[in-house]
Amino acid sequence: MSAAPPVLHGHFESGNVYKVALMFALSGERFAYRHVDLFAGATRAPDFLRLNRYGEVPLLEDGALTVSQSGAILAHLAAKFGRFGGRGESERLRVLEWLLWDNHRLTANVGTMRFFRRFAKPEPGNLDVFKTRGLVALTRLETHLGENRFLVGEPTIADISCCAYVFWLDQAGLDPAAYPNIQAWLGRIAALPGFKPAAELVPTA
Amino acid sequence: MSAAPPVLHGHFESGNVYKVALMFALSGERFAYRHVDLFAGATRAPDFLRLNRYGEVPLLEDGALTVSQSGAILAHLAAKFGRFGGRGESERLRVLEWLLWDNHRLTANVGTMRFFRRFAKPEPGNLDVFKTRGLVALTRLETHLGENRFLVGEPTIADISCCAYVFWLDQAGLDPAAYPNIQAWLGRIAALPGFKPAAELVPTA
Repeated sequence: MSAAPPVLHGHFESGNVYKVALMFALSGERFAYRHVDLFAGATRAPDFLRLNRYGEVPLLEDGALTVSQSGAILAHLAAKFGRFGGRGESERLRVLEWLLWDNHRLTANVGTMRFFRRFAKPEPGNLDVFKTRGLVALTRLETHLGENRFLVGEPTIADISCCAYVFWLDQAGLDPAAYPNIQAWLGRIAALPGFKPAAELVPTA
Repeated sequence: MSAAPPVLHGHFESGNVYKVALMFALSGERFAYRHVDLFAGATRAPDFLRLNRYGEVPLLEDGALTVSQSGAILAHLAAKFGRFGGRGESERLRVLEWLLWDNHRLTANVGTMRFFRRFAKPEPGNLDVFKTRGLVALTRLETHLGENRFLVGEPTIADISCCAYVFWLDQAGLDPAAYPNIQAWLGRIAALPGFKPAAELVPTA
C-alpha cells in the first residue's frame, strides 16, 4: 500500500460519491479529495475524460490505478482494506447482486427523481416512470429489511451502496415514514463506528 | 460441478436473459431453461419470489445456489467456467466497471426505451430523459470502440453484458447506422465461436 492516500474525485451533491467516502470512513481509512465541478461541465473536460472514460464521478485514483463506477470502487476498496466485502464466495455474490440492483433499480430511479427535483429546472414533464419504479425498489428493500438487519449478513458494501440515496428520500419527494424497516436500517448504519453523514464527509469545494 | 446443468429462468424478450444465455453459448456450456411469463405476472408469484427476492429475470439456479442480476450471474459463470472474466485483477476491475455502467447507464436507458416502445401501450408521455441519457451512453461506447476491439482486452463478460440491448437499437427507436464502431464490435461478437442471436438461444415457451 502506498503512503499517499487514494484520491477521490467527486461532488458533494452526488450520492454515488458519498458511497465511496462512507466506505473510507467506516473502514477508518483516509482519502484525499478533489472537487469536480459537475455543474460547470468539468466531467466533460478532456483532462477528466482521460482519467475516466465514463465522464462521471466518483472516480478514485489509487496509485497507478484509476477506478470508476461507485460499485467497482467499493469492490476494490473492500478487497484492499479487507472490510465489508462479505464472508466467503457466497456472500460476495449476494453483495454483487445488491450492488447491481442498486445501480439498476434503486439509484437509477430514486437518485434520478432527486436529481430532477433538486437540480433540473424545469423538471421534465413526466417523472412517473421513475416514481413507479422507485417505489417498487423501495418496497423490495423494505420487505428484505423486515427480516434482515443488514442486506447480506454483517454490514457490507451492499448496505453502503444502497443507503446513500435512501438517506435523501425526502429530497426525492418520497416519504421516509412510509418505510419503517428502511428507517431502522439507516439507523443501524448511522450507528456503525466511523459513520458520518454526507455533509460531514464530502467537502463542498 | 454437478452433472445437471444450471437452470436459467427467463423470458425471450429480455435482453438481460439473453446476456446469460449468450455466456453459456460462447463458453460451450449447456443450460436448462424455464420460461417465466413476465407479462402474466409470474415474477410476482410467491414461489418465484422465494427463489428471487428481486422479482426479476434472469435468475440462475446452479445446484443449491441461486443467483439474480445478470451482471452477478455473468461474474459467477465467468469464475465457474474460467472464461471471459478478464486477465488478472486489473482487467477484472475494468470488467466490473462496464457491468455496472451497463446497468446504470446503457441498459437502464436503451433497454427502457425499447421496453416502452415495444410493450407499454400507451407509451408514457415523455421518454426524452431516457433518450438523452441513452444517446450519451451510446456515444461513450462508440468512442471507446473506436480505439478498442473489445471493451476490455480480449472478449469478456463486459462485452456480453453491454451488447444485448445494443443488438436491438432499432427496437428502441434508435439508429444503428449512427454508430459504425459499435456495429463493427457487434460483428466481432457475432463472429465468436458459439455465438447465436437471442432468437436462437432463448426459447419462447
